[in-house]
Amino acid sequence: MKYELSPGNLLQKSEDPRAGAELFHTLLESPYVKLEHIISHGQASPPDFWYDQDEDEWVLLLRGEATLEFADGGMVRLTAGDHLTVPKRVRHRVHRTSEDAIWLALFLKV
Amino acid sequence: MKYELSPGNLLQKSEDPRAGAELFHTLLESPYVKLEHIISHGQASPPDFWYDQDEDEWVLLLRGEATLEFADGGMVRLTAGDHLTVPKRVRHRVHRTSEDAIWLALFLKV
Repeated sequence: MKYELSPGNLLQKSEDPRAGAELFHTLLESPYVKLEHIISHGQASPPDFWYDQDEDEWVLLLRGEATLEFADGGMVRLTAGDHLTVPKRVRHRVHRTSEDAIWLALFLKV
Repeated sequence: MKYELSPGNLLQKSEDPRAGAELFHTLLESPYVKLEHIISHGQASPPDFWYDQDEDEWVLLLRGEATLEFADGGMVRLTAGDHLTVPKRVRHRVHRTSEDAIWLALFLKV
């Protein structure tokens, strides 16, 4: 494995042909963790859709603003630099994001 | 475990009494990974000091500018948003950082 700079700056929006689509990119993955880079463009989860995961997830908002909604009624508003852990089985959805929201998500598989 | 916003915004410099010191803060740790937040203030590694780690390390520069130096003579310059993986046993040091450099480092223990 080399130590060269990885392609893609994580704070810049990509010029992807699928403009407006939410983009998911796995930065690294092992049997124990997955690190994901997510670019949102004002997306919210579909109404009544809830993430219900087997894995603890650590989330950092790198850019923009976003609000996460939890099944217990809680809302957590994030601005760039804010982070939190969403424990496994805690149902949540993306309530809203700004047009320029960029996330880093670390999934702890075990 | 709760899902509340974690304390501390990772893009903002802390007002730490140890002004000017390099600050290391473990955000999460499991038997498999450690995630660390590092605030630098123009620090470099001591001359002739080399990190020589048992673990692959993924590094993201969240803010500022920095240059990593490798024992094979390579230099990698990073600006905010740049990231790379430093494989285990690849000797490296911090050649320089800007006054406002903030890092995220993910260590893969296995």
